[in-house]
Amino acid sequence: MEDLLFLNEALKEAEKAFSYGEVPVGAVIVKDGRIISRAFNRKEFLQDPTAHAEILAIREASRKLNSWRLTGCTLYSTVEPCAMCAGAIIQARVERVVYAVADPKFGGVESLFKILSDRRVNHRPEVVKIELEEAVELLRSFFKLLRP
Amino acid sequence: MEDLLFLNEALKEAEKAFSYGEVPVGAVIVKDGRIISRAFNRKEFLQDPTAHAEILAIREASRKLNSWRLTGCTLYSTVEPCAMCAGAIIQARVERVVYAVADPKFGGVESLFKILSDRRVNHRPEVVKIELEEAVELLRSFFKLLRP
Repeated sequence: MEDLLFLNEALKEAEKAFSYGEVPVGAVIVKDGRIISRAFNRKEFLQDPTAHAEILAIREASRKLNSWRLTGCTLYSTVEPCAMCAGAIIQARVERVVYAVADPKFGGVESLFKILSDRRVNHRPEVVKIELEEAVELLRSFFKLLRP
Repeated sequence: MEDLLFLNEALKEAEKAFSYGEVPVGAVIVKDGRIISRAFNRKEFLQDPTAHAEILAIREASRKLNSWRLTGCTLYSTVEPCAMCAGAIIQARVERVVYAVADPKFGGVESLFKILSDRRVNHRPEVVKIELEEAVELLRSFFKLLRP
């Protein structure tokens, strides 16, 4: 139940992205039952190709903890992290990852690459997928607006 | 020959990382024959798990060009980009990637994952590997210092 609660907080972030015309992806990072960072995709606004929700949330969490090691942290994302974000999750040693929607075009967790479950990688977070119809709907509405 | 010249500029960045006690990786990004950004690994100094040389160079190049699209750009790195950095190269649409040393533990180009050559990905940069003994030596010296 707690996972669903935090995933819904990530969804609120995704809704902000949507309202700014960004691909609607949101993320929050939780440690000891509290949200320590929250972010939404800001790639267009910042013109920064790395400014995905997950990367921004990871960087903010590291600032908060003053450590690149996000030990004991869970990252919630509305969408399956891409290869870049999955790689960042490894780099940051995030302990758990919870997401809602698979991304068949860019996904780096289950779709294109399986970066978080590869046995050769020195860190393997627990991965949980929780379907969240609102996250799917948000993406659908966004791409419908783009290609009417 | 031009590739070797720019790879040596990346090596100068890696040497800076070494002198600051960071894993010695350096990167430069070149457009129209000129270096538009240069960076070295600053993960420990910034306590930012995403502060790899390639990510910092990509973000700086995007700032310079005021665009997340690094069209026509070549990224030179002393070491094979990890999954995170290879993913960022895709996100930024970097056109060419030149690197010197394979990374069997984290490499996302030829070692663990083949993110830059996967046919399902919507962008595939040209990848060139140029052996550079100095880059290997620098890494070797660094890890010898760590584990004497």
